Amino acid sequence: MRGSIGSMLLDRLQQLGISRIYGVPGDYNLEFLELIERTPGIAFIGTCNELNAAYAADGDARMTGIGAVLVTYGVGDLSALSAVAGACAEGVPVVVISGMPPMHAIGSRALVHHTLADGDYDNVMACYRQFTVASTRLQPATAVAETDRVLHAVQALKRPVYIQFPSDICYVGIDVPPPPSAIVVSDPDLLAQAAGWVVQRIAQARQPVVLVDAMVRQYGLHDLVLRLCTQYGIPYAALSSARTLLPETGALWLGPYGGQASAPGVADYVKNADCVIGLGVRFVDSTSGYFSQELQPGALIDVQPFSLTCDGKNMQGITAADLLGAVGRNISGKQPARPALPVSPDHAVLASSGAQPWGQAVFWQQVEAFLRPGDIVGADNGSSMVAMLHARLPAGCSLLVQPVWAAIGYSLPASLGACLAQPDRRHVLFIGDGSFQMTAQELSTLLRHRCNITIFLINNGGYTIERMILGPQAAYNDIANWNYAALPAAMGGDAAAILSLKAENQAELDTALAQVAQHEGLAFIEVGFIPMDAPAGLDVMGRAVRRYDYGIETPESF
Amino acid sequence: MRGSIGSMLLDRLQQLGISRIYGVPGDYNLEFLELIERTPGIAFIGTCNELNAAYAADGDARMTGIGAVLVTYGVGDLSALSAVAGACAEGVPVVVISGMPPMHAIGSRALVHHTLADGDYDNVMACYRQFTVASTRLQPATAVAETDRVLHAVQALKRPVYIQFPSDICYVGIDVPPPPSAIVVSDPDLLAQAAGWVVQRIAQARQPVVLVDAMVRQYGLHDLVLRLCTQYGIPYAALSSARTLLPETGALWLGPYGGQASAPGVADYVKNADCVIGLGVRFVDSTSGYFSQELQPGALIDVQPFSLTCDGKNMQGITAADLLGAVGRNISGKQPARPALPVSPDHAVLASSGAQPWGQAVFWQQVEAFLRPGDIVGADNGSSMVAMLHARLPAGCSLLVQPVWAAIGYSLPASLGACLAQPDRRHVLFIGDGSFQMTAQELSTLLRHRCNITIFLINNGGYTIERMILGPQAAYNDIANWNYAALPAAMGGDAAAILSLKAENQAELDTALAQVAQHEGLAFIEVGFIPMDAPAGLDVMGRAVRRYDYGIETPESF
Repeated sequence: MRGSIGSMLLDRLQQLGISRIYGVPGDYNLEFLELIERTPGIAFIGTCNELNAAYAADGDARMTGIGAVLVTYGVGDLSALSAVAGACAEGVPVVVISGMPPMHAIGSRALVHHTLADGDYDNVMACYRQFTVASTRLQPATAVAETDRVLHAVQALKRPVYIQFPSDICYVGIDVPPPPSAIVVSDPDLLAQAAGWVVQRIAQARQPVVLVDAMVRQYGLHDLVLRLCTQYGIPYAALSSARTLLPETGALWLGPYGGQASAPGVADYVKNADCVIGLGVRFVDSTSGYFSQELQPGALIDVQPFSLTCDGKNMQGITAADLLGAVGRNISGKQPARPALPVSPDHAVLASSGAQPWGQAVFWQQVEAFLRPGDIVGADNGSSMVAMLHARLPAGCSLLVQPVWAAIGYSLPASLGACLAQPDRRHVLFIGDGSFQMTAQELSTLLRHRCNITIFLINNGGYTIERMILGPQAAYNDIANWNYAALPAAMGGDAAAILSLKAENQAELDTALAQVAQHEGLAFIEVGFIPMDAPAGLDVMGRAVRRYDYGIETPESF
Repeated sequence: MRGSIGSMLLDRLQQLGISRIYGVPGDYNLEFLELIERTPGIAFIGTCNELNAAYAADGDARMTGIGAVLVTYGVGDLSALSAVAGACAEGVPVVVISGMPPMHAIGSRALVHHTLADGDYDNVMACYRQFTVASTRLQPATAVAETDRVLHAVQALKRPVYIQFPSDICYVGIDVPPPPSAIVVSDPDLLAQAAGWVVQRIAQARQPVVLVDAMVRQYGLHDLVLRLCTQYGIPYAALSSARTLLPETGALWLGPYGGQASAPGVADYVKNADCVIGLGVRFVDSTSGYFSQELQPGALIDVQPFSLTCDGKNMQGITAADLLGAVGRNISGKQPARPALPVSPDHAVLASSGAQPWGQAVFWQQVEAFLRPGDIVGADNGSSMVAMLHARLPAGCSLLVQPVWAAIGYSLPASLGACLAQPDRRHVLFIGDGSFQMTAQELSTLLRHRCNITIFLINNGGYTIERMILGPQAAYNDIANWNYAALPAAMGGDAAAILSLKAENQAELDTALAQVAQHEGLAFIEVGFIPMDAPAGLDVMGRAVRRYDYGIETPESF
């Protein structure tokens, strides 16, 4: 089929399931924007800046399986880079397209704006190579092959890719063959052997357990894992990077696992397990209670997207999906009775305990009651994420957090992506004042698209997560105190349609929650606390970080 | 002298003249922040995010000669990268310090947050290497030598440098020798020879001219250049990257030079010059009317910071400062009469022309009358910068613009740095709505520090500079319309102290300007225009970009 380089790229993106491209216009990407505007089924979502565009694409991709960003060269792609690195760290597939200076300028090493004006057109690419699984610069002779190579990588490896698109070749006509398949299949002999190993280990196990990590989201393995656990009667636990991917109720739900940061019953159960089926498991400081995981020697069966390590043997050439399917099919006979799960596998440190004074403890209790099944719950790094990782979420909730890259400010623009991806669900966001100020302008885009989101702005007068580590009284952890509740109207919200409230005590919170329950659209509630009030878990985390980063021991440190 | 690695670095920064470090706290930089807080004479200026911190340091450095930023690893330094690249492109010396994970984590390739959690600790450095002139990772054995090497580079080369500072070595004790000199001197024999060439060329010249570029700001050559021009009677012109560095009045001021984008008399004068002394000249698309500069063959004497090219000969090992000094000393006898400068070297396209309807033309005329001698005038990329580059500025004004990197949003946080660096001057900022939304949160930091700045928010409903290139009616160039005048109060400003106004016609503008003239502190004026109304020059620029980027010819294109 004949097409243009621009239309070929747009078609390919649509074939991947992309229907929204976030970004900011710039002089090098305008023809591609023209093309998007003319193409049915794919929309350009303008954001206030490029960092936020890439965060939004990340949030969208976590809901739909893939996201896309369009920026302009230099100023745009470098501004987006931290968010793209975050998507790389957390395993989120995002296609980044950079409209770059025209081929003739590159060829003549012209000194143009948005570059160092030294003729170097390779430095931005050098940066992106660090944080993507494939990258390319399109040119007419190889545009289709390069596009297909890069888009294969984003589908197979589920991490960001980067495409530089010179401004002057968007409408160049080319032959466009059908897109190649990106499905990766296992070697059948190796697969049979691998499945045999795993089945045998399960059969011999007294106390098997499945540990879920982000791979399950990346490769859409939810159903396969759940079926396997059910068939074999194996309980499962989830790292913080994998919360809400599988149901967090039912007989097989062990609880959140993060080493010594887990509920004691959960940590012990995993510690005593003689067969730990790890699904893409990566013990990161922030997901393992600072490397406090304890497993029996040799217990881990390490299932990664395209490999297996079991009993000291490593096997390449099989996919996790195929392996889980094969293990499920190879089940034989009735499964033995498994040890009982810990009585009350209770991670809810927040359980109600009658009348308490106003503060974060009582606030997060009420939050648990406020959340409804099916909500998409964003929680920014710091107090909000720690609280939500300890909270019990209703069935079918999805938690939107970024515990590995852990950039404050992530969740507001990521929620924009999640809202546009899943407009029929209710969205709830918890974000601290320091985090909010990072990316605050994207509140306006949530308003512009009339997103159905309730934002709780946790105002505790600065960076409480840092205060818990060092400098509890230090001025460097202070920030300006905004009049947050006035922002939605200032950022263009229709005053009649917005609910914007402030709660600094129990009565105000009760009123606010009652109003929010009746409200459709964007609701914004500033909730005020004193600086060192924090959810359970934040001080423990602060001590662990203090010890790890600075070698400072504190008595209660775990 | 004994010290710690942290105190040594802080001392060295202070010895360079740094008294403010912009940034955001993060768990890897807290001990260094503690040290800053305890150290007299150096202050930490917290900003809302890291991109803005680096822009602020850039603005500060343009006023004081050097700036500094402190961020946390990964999330912080990658967020700041585009602003650092901007400083590199424009020749602004900024020291970037990244608090990074502890040495023991790097050594064991631990999987920690704010990294890809794959054990790679080199990827962020790989990015920074592209946009800095020196970089290092501190460790106890080499901390002083590495610090001195990197700080020598920032002083000598006047572009950004990057220091990674592992969290666990801040208080490690070390011997600290006195800092080495960073003064670079010329080889005296080469210098004499080079000065001879230049003096001879000037003596033979019928029509010499000096072309000023950013090097004059970087190396503080203002006085040397002015003296030389005066001694020899040579007129000077300034590229847009060097506006307001030298007086823009007087008998020798030729006018702004930007190839065919200059006033005709100026372009012709340079074109006919038989001796063009270029001071760090770099013809970038945005500073040369898209490469429309015309010089006589062989006319250019290319003076760069550490080299000279003259009559086809290149000489290394001499500094521009020494060369200009030597040429000034070598003057002999009375200088010949020079050709008259163009009658009325008038670049003020904005000259008043009686009663006009409300619009940008009349607005920018009034702006010229509003500006006072000594103002620091920021103008963001797009309409505002184009207008200011065409405006006649009062004596002693400094123009804060970023024409080469040309990132929209630069000027608001850069103005924060300029305000803190020069609190006794009046600051005035012109910024479009699209630019403002990029970095809007830093308005709160201007308020927090009670900066004396008047901000004109040019609200023309989106990216007018892009509309001038492509898509004048396109939805992708639209942005959300904020209630801008409500923002200062929402961002924590003291309502009694802020002046926040809106002007959508002549009468409202008159009232606003009268009020601003009486006001101390922050004044914010939203000025409304229709989308395709723009200052003179923007449509010409739009046509040039359209042709260069997309190959689209339009009849009036220059």
